[in-house]
Amino acid sequence: MKTRNVLDLTDLTHDELMAVIRLADDIRKKPADYAEVCRGRILATLFYEPSTRTQMSFQTAMLRLGGTIIGFANPQNSSVAKGESLKDTITVVGGYTDIIAIRHPLEGTAAAAAMYSPVPVVNAGDGGHLHPTQTLTDVVTLHNEMGRLDNLTIGLCGDLKNGRTVHSLIKTMSTFKGNRFILISTPELTIPQYIKDIINASECTYKEIPSLADAMPQLDVLYMTRIQRERFSSIEEYNRQHGVFILDKEKLRTAKKNMKILHPLPRVDEIDVEVDYDDRAKYFEQTVYGMYGRMALIMKLLEKGDKKYPARIMPSHPFGCKNPKCITSTEKYLPGIFREAGGDMLICKYCDGRRLI
Amino acid sequence: MKTRNVLDLTDLTHDELMAVIRLADDIRKKPADYAEVCRGRILATLFYEPSTRTQMSFQTAMLRLGGTIIGFANPQNSSVAKGESLKDTITVVGGYTDIIAIRHPLEGTAAAAAMYSPVPVVNAGDGGHLHPTQTLTDVVTLHNEMGRLDNLTIGLCGDLKNGRTVHSLIKTMSTFKGNRFILISTPELTIPQYIKDIINASECTYKEIPSLADAMPQLDVLYMTRIQRERFSSIEEYNRQHGVFILDKEKLRTAKKNMKILHPLPRVDEIDVEVDYDDRAKYFEQTVYGMYGRMALIMKLLEKGDKKYPARIMPSHPFGCKNPKCITSTEKYLPGIFREAGGDMLICKYCDGRRLI
Amino acid sequence: MKTRNVLDLTDLTHDELMAVIRLADDIRKKPADYAEVCRGRILATLFYEPSTRTQMSFQTAMLRLGGTIIGFANPQNSSVAKGESLKDTITVVGGYTDIIAIRHPLEGTAAAAAMYSPVPVVNAGDGGHLHPTQTLTDVVTLHNEMGRLDNLTIGLCGDLKNGRTVHSLIKTMSTFKGNRFILISTPELTIPQYIKDIINASECTYKEIPSLADAMPQLDVLYMTRIQRERFSSIEEYNRQHGVFILDKEKLRTAKKNMKILHPLPRVDEIDVEVDYDDRAKYFEQTVYGMYGRMALIMKLLEKGDKKYPARIMPSHPFGCKNPKCITSTEKYLPGIFREAGGDMLICKYCDGRRLI
Repeated sequence: MKTRNVLDLTDLTHDELMAVIRLADDIRKKPADYAEVCRGRILATLFYEPSTRTQMSFQTAMLRLGGTIIGFANPQNSSVAKGESLKDTITVVGGYTDIIAIRHPLEGTAAAAAMYSPVPVVNAGDGGHLHPTQTLTDVVTLHNEMGRLDNLTIGLCGDLKNGRTVHSLIKTMSTFKGNRFILISTPELTIPQYIKDIINASECTYKEIPSLADAMPQLDVLYMTRIQRERFSSIEEYNRQHGVFILDKEKLRTAKKNMKILHPLPRVDEIDVEVDYDDRAKYFEQTVYGMYGRMALIMKLLEKGDKKYPARIMPSHPFGCKNPKCITSTEKYLPGIFREAGGDMLICKYCDGRRLI
Repeated sequence: MKTRNVLDLTDLTHDELMAVIRLADDIRKKPADYAEVCRGRILATLFYEPSTRTQMSFQTAMLRLGGTIIGFANPQNSSVAKGESLKDTITVVGGYTDIIAIRHPLEGTAAAAAMYSPVPVVNAGDGGHLHPTQTLTDVVTLHNEMGRLDNLTIGLCGDLKNGRTVHSLIKTMSTFKGNRFILISTPELTIPQYIKDIINASECTYKEIPSLADAMPQLDVLYMTRIQRERFSSIEEYNRQHGVFILDKEKLRTAKKNMKILHPLPRVDEIDVEVDYDDRAKYFEQTVYGMYGRMALIMKLLEKGDKKYPARIMPSHPFGCKNPKCITSTEKYLPGIFREAGGDMLICKYCDGRRLI
Repeated sequence: MKTRNVLDLTDLTHDELMAVIRLADDIRKKPADYAEVCRGRILATLFYEPSTRTQMSFQTAMLRLGGTIIGFANPQNSSVAKGESLKDTITVVGGYTDIIAIRHPLEGTAAAAAMYSPVPVVNAGDGGHLHPTQTLTDVVTLHNEMGRLDNLTIGLCGDLKNGRTVHSLIKTMSTFKGNRFILISTPELTIPQYIKDIINASECTYKEIPSLADAMPQLDVLYMTRIQRERFSSIEEYNRQHGVFILDKEKLRTAKKNMKILHPLPRVDEIDVEVDYDDRAKYFEQTVYGMYGRMALIMKLLEKGDKKYPARIMPSHPFGCKNPKCITSTEKYLPGIFREAGGDMLICKYCDGRRLI
């Protein structure tokens, strides 16, 4: 694979994405064929905030390929996280290992890491920004469960305003033809305009529906996400609206017999436990598909196998990003790099935040 | 092996237990023969409270079989432990791995985990309730050091009222013939009646002796445990009685030459450091036997190798357990399941706690 | 290799050290030849204080030899660290594993561990006392980058009074002929007299120069270390002197073209980030050399492969060490062992602290 780092799933070309998905299917069918392909290779999972399930998924992916793992799960236990620059940590860990999966509470951290790493970097989540292997998990699941990635009617329910997994899934599924997105949320939590723009520019369509029950009958796929209590304007509003977005057996009665229910997990109460026993529930299988997706991605990224310290990247502008959640807010040596977005608007390379020149 | 989960050592049939013990002996003698038998298999150690030694014993057991390990050591570092149900965590981790060892401060957690796990579950300690691999450690040690598991005079010293390892060891050793249990404790910390009932119903006998020195000469085995200071009625009582239950070189003078001293570890001061240099001290070897016992148990549990999500288990009663230390007190979706114990008495499937109908 | 434990690098004979260095070179050139040599062996990394990079270096070293790893990174997550003696922990972990790397905030901990361990112990740092694998890292780097370990002009810059890595490097490099040490520090932070005594007794020489710029032109090697702010007598003094000991592009202008810059890492601001892009900067390669050095050391220590509980060591004197940072201050059962240093002076075997008889 030509792509070296996966900071967003869109870093993969369409062909590369399809190759990863097909490889994931093949690994799932013939795991013994792949049990030794990464023998001698080491994955570092650098988790600057705990995310046990994501970390375990990466770890089991590498172990099931015959590779080994090191890493940390929590900055409080790590001297690396204190008093050492990300640049130095990545340079050193990249010298020890063959591939790095990094998770960090600040946006753009994986992009910053990739600027210094001699080995491939996979973004395992950078704040509320990007989480490409979750989206890979979702498309591997759809490819297996639906047999195709086009011409699907996909309901997305919950907090569509802030949910990065929803945004990322729509971006990726919009690259396939004829998908219809049914967007189910409260008026306050509707999808951002820029996501609508992406759909409009694609061969897909969307419709906004404020009720899960109303949307249900037409769906091939229902992608559930959590609405955090604090997203509602008041506790009264929460109590009034909350139930509308909870999936239970009653609401499932009008669903297609072969609809598939997905959820990025962890869930809180937005899917009733009763639904777990319905054959349409695929959110647990989804995590296993995610492991196969990560196996395929790791394999592809390790194909080249060379270590190469990246060339120095120079700043594009003599100033930095203003987003306080951007990794550049704490790692001061990072060069200010922006792409132009028309007029005086600039977009930060790390966090995709916007500022004026 | 037919048994799928080991929540208590009594889950194994007598034949299964003997097969595990014999396999442990064989692994100890010919470790190279077993160094690759679990190649490609993954053990998850999910430790919701730290217990470094037990976790390391499971980990080295799996590694010495050629398998690999993932897991966590502490809930504070784990996003899994926060905000996700045990059911969901187990379902997901069971999808990633091949066998799970779980430790949790609440009673019945391993039983609850087994209800949802697609892979075998081993109880690595659930509160003060059960800890079967400690008992397995003890019987593997006895089998090797004594050459038999019957017709032994076994002294058990310390807090016999609250010590789960003591209760569990007596339960298991009572299934062999002719064992004599010498129960050595303060009057306040004597063995519970239900353990006496078990011995009385077996082909074994017991005697209660309030002094370690008095019991010493007749013992084949001395199983030491800790008495926590707070178990005594007052600090004066502690100071008065405490020394009676400390093992030192002086008390050992009347012991048999080939008596074996065991202790589940960690010890505090109930065995004087001087005793470590006595040939009869076997508590360190005991931990190595424990590793071989866990190797044998893991091998046996992985024999089948299939993944199978358990069938849904329905509640036996329309209410729950009242024990505040029972896992059902925090995991509300768990079905209330009880077995009848005569009259209106019910026994909780998870924690063995009792309540009236 | 005859040496069983590496508490200080001086535990290795000159021939053993050279064998380790040459093996490290060979592993670096032909890593595939060594990828399975420790198959089936387990390294325990017992880190009683976090030091992520050192721990990762040991872990990757073992993994790249085909071995496996267990351990902990932080006492707060470990039940071992609470309420169990070091002696018991080491005895048990030594029973599970094949080699132990231990790090601890108290001085002499590795020496104490070696007294009880049935397997080789490597000191991965004991307080401010010793850190032999850092020095091994340094000499492996020099051997590769300079092609020799003698007749080098080595500048050492920073806190020479308190820097254990500097002391240890000088001690080791003084065993080779014709090295010239240029000692660059503030008057308050000059090298201790006992290090000067070591150089004077060797075939090497030293010179003290208070300015990095003045020393620069003659150096073959520049070994940078950090000066902690609190080491200066006042904040004014810090501000006045600090910049003199910072390496930047400007100061490098007078350096030899093929000078090598080393640093034990992590750095704070004593090397400007600009210097990273200079070909003479070798501090990141140094960490990779460190991994190869640790691989060689682990291989050599595992050559024998036997487990052997050490014989009991008796106290040399009926009292203990008075150094509050010595491991004997908390592990009370440790025998007081001293060597005589002339007059009434004794030197503690654990921490090298001095006391009168």
